[in-house]
Amino acid sequence: MKVGVLGATGYAGQELVRLLQRHEEVNDLYLASSSVAGEDYDSVYPHWLGQNVGILQDENVPDLDVLFCALPHGLTAARTSTFLSRNIKVIDLGADFRLNSAQVYEEWYKIKHPAAGLLKDAVYGLTELYREQIRGRSLIANPGCYPTATLLALVPLLRKNLLQTKFLIIDAKSGVSGAGRGVSLGTHYSEVNENFKPYGVASHRHTPEIEQELSRAAGQPLTVNFTPHLVPMTRGMLVTIYAAVQDGVKEEDLRRCWLEQYNGEEFIRILPQGTWPQTKFASGSNNAFLQLTIDQRTGNAILVAAIDNLIKGAAGQAIQNMNLVMGCPESQGITGTALWP
Amino acid sequence: MKVGVLGATGYAGQELVRLLQRHEEVNDLYLASSSVAGEDYDSVYPHWLGQNVGILQDENVPDLDVLFCALPHGLTAARTSTFLSRNIKVIDLGADFRLNSAQVYEEWYKIKHPAAGLLKDAVYGLTELYREQIRGRSLIANPGCYPTATLLALVPLLRKNLLQTKFLIIDAKSGVSGAGRGVSLGTHYSEVNENFKPYGVASHRHTPEIEQELSRAAGQPLTVNFTPHLVPMTRGMLVTIYAAVQDGVKEEDLRRCWLEQYNGEEFIRILPQGTWPQTKFASGSNNAFLQLTIDQRTGNAILVAAIDNLIKGAAGQAIQNMNLVMGCPESQGITGTALWP
Amino acid sequence: MKVGVLGATGYAGQELVRLLQRHEEVNDLYLASSSVAGEDYDSVYPHWLGQNVGILQDENVPDLDVLFCALPHGLTAARTSTFLSRNIKVIDLGADFRLNSAQVYEEWYKIKHPAAGLLKDAVYGLTELYREQIRGRSLIANPGCYPTATLLALVPLLRKNLLQTKFLIIDAKSGVSGAGRGVSLGTHYSEVNENFKPYGVASHRHTPEIEQELSRAAGQPLTVNFTPHLVPMTRGMLVTIYAAVQDGVKEEDLRRCWLEQYNGEEFIRILPQGTWPQTKFASGSNNAFLQLTIDQRTGNAILVAAIDNLIKGAAGQAIQNMNLVMGCPESQGITGTALWP
Amino acid sequence: MKVGVLGATGYAGQELVRLLQRHEEVNDLYLASSSVAGEDYDSVYPHWLGQNVGILQDENVPDLDVLFCALPHGLTAARTSTFLSRNIKVIDLGADFRLNSAQVYEEWYKIKHPAAGLLKDAVYGLTELYREQIRGRSLIANPGCYPTATLLALVPLLRKNLLQTKFLIIDAKSGVSGAGRGVSLGTHYSEVNENFKPYGVASHRHTPEIEQELSRAAGQPLTVNFTPHLVPMTRGMLVTIYAAVQDGVKEEDLRRCWLEQYNGEEFIRILPQGTWPQTKFASGSNNAFLQLTIDQRTGNAILVAAIDNLIKGAAGQAIQNMNLVMGCPESQGITGTALWP
Repeated sequence: MKVGVLGATGYAGQELVRLLQRHEEVNDLYLASSSVAGEDYDSVYPHWLGQNVGILQDENVPDLDVLFCALPHGLTAARTSTFLSRNIKVIDLGADFRLNSAQVYEEWYKIKHPAAGLLKDAVYGLTELYREQIRGRSLIANPGCYPTATLLALVPLLRKNLLQTKFLIIDAKSGVSGAGRGVSLGTHYSEVNENFKPYGVASHRHTPEIEQELSRAAGQPLTVNFTPHLVPMTRGMLVTIYAAVQDGVKEEDLRRCWLEQYNGEEFIRILPQGTWPQTKFASGSNNAFLQLTIDQRTGNAILVAAIDNLIKGAAGQAIQNMNLVMGCPESQGITGTALWP
Repeated sequence: MKVGVLGATGYAGQELVRLLQRHEEVNDLYLASSSVAGEDYDSVYPHWLGQNVGILQDENVPDLDVLFCALPHGLTAARTSTFLSRNIKVIDLGADFRLNSAQVYEEWYKIKHPAAGLLKDAVYGLTELYREQIRGRSLIANPGCYPTATLLALVPLLRKNLLQTKFLIIDAKSGVSGAGRGVSLGTHYSEVNENFKPYGVASHRHTPEIEQELSRAAGQPLTVNFTPHLVPMTRGMLVTIYAAVQDGVKEEDLRRCWLEQYNGEEFIRILPQGTWPQTKFASGSNNAFLQLTIDQRTGNAILVAAIDNLIKGAAGQAIQNMNLVMGCPESQGITGTALWP
Repeated sequence: MKVGVLGATGYAGQELVRLLQRHEEVNDLYLASSSVAGEDYDSVYPHWLGQNVGILQDENVPDLDVLFCALPHGLTAARTSTFLSRNIKVIDLGADFRLNSAQVYEEWYKIKHPAAGLLKDAVYGLTELYREQIRGRSLIANPGCYPTATLLALVPLLRKNLLQTKFLIIDAKSGVSGAGRGVSLGTHYSEVNENFKPYGVASHRHTPEIEQELSRAAGQPLTVNFTPHLVPMTRGMLVTIYAAVQDGVKEEDLRRCWLEQYNGEEFIRILPQGTWPQTKFASGSNNAFLQLTIDQRTGNAILVAAIDNLIKGAAGQAIQNMNLVMGCPESQGITGTALWP
Repeated sequence: MKVGVLGATGYAGQELVRLLQRHEEVNDLYLASSSVAGEDYDSVYPHWLGQNVGILQDENVPDLDVLFCALPHGLTAARTSTFLSRNIKVIDLGADFRLNSAQVYEEWYKIKHPAAGLLKDAVYGLTELYREQIRGRSLIANPGCYPTATLLALVPLLRKNLLQTKFLIIDAKSGVSGAGRGVSLGTHYSEVNENFKPYGVASHRHTPEIEQELSRAAGQPLTVNFTPHLVPMTRGMLVTIYAAVQDGVKEEDLRRCWLEQYNGEEFIRILPQGTWPQTKFASGSNNAFLQLTIDQRTGNAILVAAIDNLIKGAAGQAIQNMNLVMGCPESQGITGTALWP
């Protein structure tokens, strides 16, 4: 397959390159960057020296089977119809095709949607939850990292009506790499290290994405409290979710629902009771780790999910989707366990 | 004043020594450790070289004005009545006198309470909330770190009946120093670094302490979901709290309640709207930072509090209580801003 | 091939398992641990859940092609002759066969060498430097992490007599994982984090190993100043080496020597001039990064090498050696670039 | 005293503010920032809320007793003669007055020295080594952080001619705060965390400053190899120094020399034999920790010094100098031990 990456020097882009380079069905790799076109990849990332990745191209996209777009929102949508018309499958790691509604997009991203007409053709690429819809499709909206962790935990339970939809709390924690490679005081080492803080409280752009998918699972509109926090570590994401259960629902009902949903899944690990996810369990892998309990004092369910924000939360899931779209084995190129310690 | 510390080589104990050494009213310091009695303090902590702290004593407590007990639970209570009968004021940094009920203590701490008869004499030492009860008293139960952060945010609002008591979520995050100086795989550098995890889910011993004090504030029994997490950093604690508000309550009502409660407080900083607490704001200081909002999508309140777990969450508040008990200016020896960066 | 690992739950052992599991020629994996035999691998390391590694065996070693020994010193040597007599190739990640002299071993490791007679049969497995001696051999002493980084930089230059041997300074820095999984105050998170310190000054056990190999390269006995330091990070190792050059030797002579020695090497990256190694360049990979300069003020050479201490410094190089011993392509199972960021 | 700080929002500037605020002789504080004049200090640093530091001024300096300049090089020198003519004592935390030679300054800092005529009036403010010259003077060049740690270890030994001057290796390691608050890829969290790297190899601007002072101590010109490295931590600095000793010099001679030099010094701690400095020993304090040995294998001395780069390496020593200049007790406002853990 001939595969391309737009935005190949961002953190998600670079992770795509790393994973694609070892993917056996990918024999031609087009890597583009608008800002450093013409430079050697290993001059941008010296640790790539000797891996023969070559020169970064400009964004004149050649004929490809699949194109990954790891660009700021707005930039992908503007060009997608061209790509599709050339029979290039598009997997967008950005936000342009995640929301079904152009109006909601415009409200949260503060720009007019550049290709609202394509929204109906996009599939939301949370692989385990929408596998059949993804297979063979041409335009995949790769989910955000926070939504990936959140939806893996909640969607099966809401589909089966095991949770109430009234008081859904998603307290989320992310490593700093989620903020990308652009420098700012908020990601300046001395201000982040030995520090822990919430950000985007009641206003983070992954909120409507989470609400859209949870509403779809629940069969009714719902809202959530979603609070992201920045953890002084580079990689990893963990969400702690609180929800009231429906009358009579017990811990084993919730667990059984997860086990049924994720039976046979290569990347979903429901931990043994009492073992709680840690971000490091997932670090460097496409695996997601899940655990839950019902707190006997309050009767509420506590769900925890952990992923690597750049792999299952970005590049790994994008390749999982590519595999589905192109008919490769779903786990090709993205198997393996975490780097530990 | 002549002041003593039992458990002077643990992290809270060492922080007490640091703060007491610069306290102008403390002119005699008795430091004891059951495990390393007879050793020089600076052989245990080489960075203390040249500070003239002297030899660690055994636990034959001399005549003192105030004794801080920074010991594992059970050990303080067994000896407290002796100390009190010798007119030594006791400030317990452990858990022995925090819970009003010996039965609840026994349920959570799995030992019989060694001095249940003294529980009624102990005052819960969350200084800003119980100042008048603390002044001049002889037995102070210094609060746990998680309860300190949580109660500072919630108690004023519950006292004024601004929040519902049904669905109280306390998602808490702590630096690793809270686990103390004892080694374990759970605090082994390579397992903690670049890792984030929950622990004690639905079972942490600070839960009944939080519930007791929130119930007192609300005037009715209530339960909470309390989930602590371990952050890969040494110091700092932040809690994110979710609660439904009473009908008609607005963000400005909550804020006004805090401002009234904490008007003139030296250690409580209610941040300007839109600025959220970070653990580093408090690091090395006795200050607590607060912020809140009401999420317009769900109508729920989100409250955040940050403290230094070893200072306002332990040694600093203990000295604040000593100051009250002994009639010193409340902030003596514990003023100052965080060490930044 | 049928491959075994003794000490499969230490950090080096676990890294061996990770790498061997994806090695295409390894179809049978025997994993042993004396301390947790009988337990599931994923109960020791929950992130291994779903990878089907199975139960940890006791140390009754079955018939194998290759056995990796990742054990404390002394334990491997005691059993090696038995393994060899059963035609099992032994790759020792410990220190038992690194030193040619039993007497030097006894001086530094404080025990009698359990198999001094085998020392002459062991090959020092620094692959790039002793490739031809390793091929097809039965007993490989896998080098220590510090020696690996140091020797890669120095040996070629000493072989060609480009450096003086009188004043060789090796200032080395390692991540904490090099200390293994055993808990101690020295690896307790709160004592290591935000801290940097030397250790084993003028007394570290890798000293005689480095001196032995440098003396061999120089053709004369020499001594070095070797000072390891602990860096507050989990993985990675970097050595900064200072040496006087022989009369008339220029920077380009040194560089040319490296380029000739490492021409065509898959795992050695000599960075472009002015780009200095960083430990993260190597993290998660078997790659070693090198750079040098001659300081114009003093005329001394400064050499820097960076590796991942657990891969090129342990498990990765061990597999590289296995590949050589067994006739597999040398880089099989250990290719790929670092995990970044 | 009325004291001012130019550059009050940089890291060194902010540390000055923290220390000056608790200094009993400072009753009036003028804080200026060219970039954010007119803003509240606590809008720049929210953790300062409630400390009443007030509004940042522009750089129209009022009448003051002492002015600290924490500005990029070049900016201080241009205005110093004005300050001096107004009887304002100037303590420059920048590089403008550290080098005696305008020519060397121009070579390393690449600008013409703006006030070469004042160089002869400046005193190099390494307090313990030049105390008598500093007392009562008007223009103090506060040393760089690397020179401070290095010179404390080496100067006494060179003054007594105990070390050879030929092969002086200074391998230095610093936390990231030394790079200041300006954002860059080199201080971007995800690129620095879990990473260790040299920088400024054979070209760092502290080299001529170190050489100048060591040459002065030795009584002859000398050069050094100085290699700084970046440690993934915020604060702290440690230098490891290698030197050949003069014939017949023993470890106890070196130690005795240090003990004599630093006898009675409040901020210098020579650790007991076998205990090596750690950066955390000094963190948050003005203390410097020293240790040495002679490596029996090579006969070379190994010296290690650790300081807090922002305190003894910048703001703390600046106040120590202010105290000397103004006749206050030398340790006023800067006593105390490290924040631990």
